[in-house]
Amino acid sequence: MKKCEFCHLSEADRKFLLYENEFWSVYLADKQDYIGRCIVVSREHKESLSELSSSQWMALKDIVDALEALLKNELGAAMLNWSCLMNDAYKTTPPQPHVHFHVRPRYAAPIRIDDTCYHDAEFAHHYNNRCADQMHAAAKRRLFELLKHNVTAYFK
Amino acid sequence: MKKCEFCHLSEADRKFLLYENEFWSVYLADKQDYIGRCIVVSREHKESLSELSSSQWMALKDIVDALEALLKNELGAAMLNWSCLMNDAYKTTPPQPHVHFHVRPRYAAPIRIDDTCYHDAEFAHHYNNRCADQMHAAAKRRLFELLKHNVTAYFK
Repeated sequence: MKKCEFCHLSEADRKFLLYENEFWSVYLADKQDYIGRCIVVSREHKESLSELSSSQWMALKDIVDALEALLKNELGAAMLNWSCLMNDAYKTTPPQPHVHFHVRPRYAAPIRIDDTCYHDAEFAHHYNNRCADQMHAAAKRRLFELLKHNVTAYFK
Repeated sequence: MKKCEFCHLSEADRKFLLYENEFWSVYLADKQDYIGRCIVVSREHKESLSELSSSQWMALKDIVDALEALLKNELGAAMLNWSCLMNDAYKTTPPQPHVHFHVRPRYAAPIRIDDTCYHDAEFAHHYNNRCADQMHAAAKRRLFELLKHNVTAYFK
């Protein structure tokens, strides 16, 4: 049986860990198709939103609040797209879904990081799930350091 | 200034209201691209998830639990895709986002309602945002009645 991917993250998988508390881990996503895209992962293996405990659910609200403020204030995101899908887990049998959220910041105006300008070409429209990664490795590392440097001002 | 659509729903818009409490309304969606697709709408005008109060957030968990159970047990959904996007609100100036969730049940096996069989062609893959409506008006009415009939067994 294939192991649950999120229960067995390697150190390399965790290289962009922005914040972690008892219940949730927040990562900057490897794929930066939307600048500042993050993944919020339940630390415990829960298979659907309805399996989350009250404590996990309340702790999630603190994550939502902090992450929205971080990405709006530090990157200039106009708003965020939140989704909890877990479709990929159903490609294997038995499926092992593990609760996580995709968080895509969306930008009304171009965003500049160092010398590069990024555009959200589909702003005000559904995200493009096949959008290409917009950042090279060094830019991702720079973005991670920028967010990580500011994270304590937002997360409790 | 254009009115917030969700703050001014007509009786026709509310025809598929499945459940409502102090904080949230649950509708069967007009567009049944995924069978049993629902929309969960905040009754108060809140512009982002971080604006929700603790009471609203806790009440949302009850809705999540009830709706997952309803759609899995009554329709045979294998899992649900949850998303809170609100992109359309940014097509107008000033934007007036109003917190709501799209809930798409996903099916590993065909689902039969009355004499019609429906297939989730992209199961285990991201939903297709341009998927056509699968149900004609009478079938939607029948589906609504089926869910409405069972709703009190799931929602507190």
